[in-house]
Amino acid sequence: MAILAETSESIAQKLGFRLVVKALCARSFTGKQIPAALAGALQTTDWREVVNHPEVEIIAELIGGQGVAKEIIESSLAAGKSVVTANKELMAAQGPAPVEKAIEPGATVAMEASVAGGIPVHTVLREGISGDRIEALYGILNGTSNYILTAIERDGAAFGDVLAEAQRLGYAEADPTADVDGYDARSKLAILAALAFGEKITAADIYTEGIRRVSPIDFQYAHRLGHTIRLLCAARLTPDGLTLSVRPALLPESTILASVMGAYNAVWIRGQYGADTFYYGRGAGPHPTGVAVVSDLMRVAREIRSGSPQRVNPFAHARLGANQPASVLHQKRAYYLRFRVKDEPGIIAALASILAAKHISLDAVLQLPSEDKAALPFVITVEPTTERSIREAVAAMAELAFMVEPVLVLPMETAL
Amino acid sequence: MAILAETSESIAQKLGFRLVVKALCARSFTGKQIPAALAGALQTTDWREVVNHPEVEIIAELIGGQGVAKEIIESSLAAGKSVVTANKELMAAQGPAPVEKAIEPGATVAMEASVAGGIPVHTVLREGISGDRIEALYGILNGTSNYILTAIERDGAAFGDVLAEAQRLGYAEADPTADVDGYDARSKLAILAALAFGEKITAADIYTEGIRRVSPIDFQYAHRLGHTIRLLCAARLTPDGLTLSVRPALLPESTILASVMGAYNAVWIRGQYGADTFYYGRGAGPHPTGVAVVSDLMRVAREIRSGSPQRVNPFAHARLGANQPASVLHQKRAYYLRFRVKDEPGIIAALASILAAKHISLDAVLQLPSEDKAALPFVITVEPTTERSIREAVAAMAELAFMVEPVLVLPMETAL
Repeated sequence: MAILAETSESIAQKLGFRLVVKALCARSFTGKQIPAALAGALQTTDWREVVNHPEVEIIAELIGGQGVAKEIIESSLAAGKSVVTANKELMAAQGPAPVEKAIEPGATVAMEASVAGGIPVHTVLREGISGDRIEALYGILNGTSNYILTAIERDGAAFGDVLAEAQRLGYAEADPTADVDGYDARSKLAILAALAFGEKITAADIYTEGIRRVSPIDFQYAHRLGHTIRLLCAARLTPDGLTLSVRPALLPESTILASVMGAYNAVWIRGQYGADTFYYGRGAGPHPTGVAVVSDLMRVAREIRSGSPQRVNPFAHARLGANQPASVLHQKRAYYLRFRVKDEPGIIAALASILAAKHISLDAVLQLPSEDKAALPFVITVEPTTERSIREAVAAMAELAFMVEPVLVLPMETAL
Repeated sequence: MAILAETSESIAQKLGFRLVVKALCARSFTGKQIPAALAGALQTTDWREVVNHPEVEIIAELIGGQGVAKEIIESSLAAGKSVVTANKELMAAQGPAPVEKAIEPGATVAMEASVAGGIPVHTVLREGISGDRIEALYGILNGTSNYILTAIERDGAAFGDVLAEAQRLGYAEADPTADVDGYDARSKLAILAALAFGEKITAADIYTEGIRRVSPIDFQYAHRLGHTIRLLCAARLTPDGLTLSVRPALLPESTILASVMGAYNAVWIRGQYGADTFYYGRGAGPHPTGVAVVSDLMRVAREIRSGSPQRVNPFAHARLGANQPASVLHQKRAYYLRFRVKDEPGIIAALASILAAKHISLDAVLQLPSEDKAALPFVITVEPTTERSIREAVAAMAELAFMVEPVLVLPMETAL
């Protein structure tokens, strides 16, 4: 709202016409500061007044969630009015439904703000590189998790301590589950993968694992291996179909994704023709999200002015049958296995024999100096094998008496 | 052409209609392999046949230069037909003229391929972050220079040797002037700055300096200072106006721009609201450029289908009077000064007294071990001062008898 008010002149300059705010809707206007430039707008607490306003052509829905927001979007589209939304939950849960509904009646849904608010990745996928065929999309899509992981890396502090500090500073919510357990990143990946691969993606298609078990010692081992650890969102076309995952992974320190620090977001796209492109910016925040909303408003206004909102179906990008979501179980890659054991003779032999029985080749055994003989940490890396094999091996290892805690299994994304 | 032929099905899926290639124009078709999917297209050596073809709605101009390409673009627009172009020279030399001409007759000019072919930065500026007010734009826009600089950095080889090797490998042209002296980067910055700041930018507005004088020793000193060296394109709004430069500069190693290696390109944009965003990809090559051309064709086709090509004036983005190009002479920043001198007593005293006379504060004096007493390299860094002051100081230093070669002056972009 501040951006719309402060930049109305430059918006008019860019568009060639004015963008006029006709109506504002909020649960209450008490105590709200309305910028002078928007003082002429109708103020109402009833969203129907906005949707039915004869002069309103575009509705910006900034409520979020799947309740009244859904009703507003559907009513607007039914009335032939276009919608700009930042609603990640709804878009991820409903998949392409609102957009497909939008295609027919001549209204459109724009949702740049719904994922990685500060990065115009929707625009990039919809237009910038629409001529390419996308083979893989990787992202760091949850700022809170990235803030926590990079703080563990920098300070060597434990997950719990870093989380508490992040909560104190307002970087993490009181209930951090959506962020640190990967659900927020999963919603975002569902939207981006749908855009990139033209498929209906649901949360259930995405293997999801959070960052709670990543500890300072894992960064020490990762660095020893020339890697770092990030919560990686990945969508890749494989001969089996589209594999989708959100999980902590080892990334080579030399990859540009590894340089994403703090609460930033990033998206890495590999196209068949255009090769690798990389996009980076703020993940959230009122101003970056505001830029996305205003940019969407401008685009839709321009489309209305030049004819009709464009019949872009971002979810039809490559629906040629090859992009069905597939299980990650058949994916092959190297793995990092971090153990904590009661120190006793024969441990490596026992673990190595389980790996051998599953036809998994051991790559390296690493043990940094440690005082903690009762819960001794060490790491085994293995050569590329399937997720299924590694899970079977880890399940067998869980039976071993010297195991103090479950093995931490992180894929090594050496190809990035 | 290959991309258009190979992806015609997925293009149809994304657009909801087919993109049909009606005519191909080349100087000669002898020996040219025309993909089967395009066999139905008219083949002609006379571009007027394409422009006047009644079924042709969009013309892709991929010739380059300011000769016949200019004629083709102007004739197409005059005939009310939209143009997709990769023509960097023409767009940089003509400024917004072709686009402004395009606005009236209902045809448009799309030129994603003209700068940083693999990175959809036009789309980002035109739509993705159009709601923001851009404060600064930084780029690594010449792949050859970046290839050479990162090779000097990696191998410690001299500029001449690296250039010869780059020419042998096809990364540099026989006449490398346009690349290593900054002229190619300057054309690209002229286009991007015009898009970002809505101003008519000409090459003369951009202070330009190439990379020929950067040597391995400079990377050693830069690393000692926690920096690296890149050919930085910079456009920033200052209280004086828009300052524009292409020149080698010290960048902190921690900035994401410093991680751009080899022939890649990158653009860093700082917005008033959206803060920092960063875009990275291939700078050139037939496939990345092809993606940009096909994506532009798709967008313009969609616009034609939905009404008329959009009257987007990318050059009116912020023409509010404040963005006039301004001299870099008043810019204030820290500088890196690298000397080569005949070793004798009193050198630092002589240099320090010149700096003091210009009211420039010395920050550090660095001297790495060197055998070369006849041309001893060492470095002085100074605290932020104006470009004018540093030039005056360096002019005075040139008179000193112990100077073996002119001082190498590199700004330190510590704010990145």
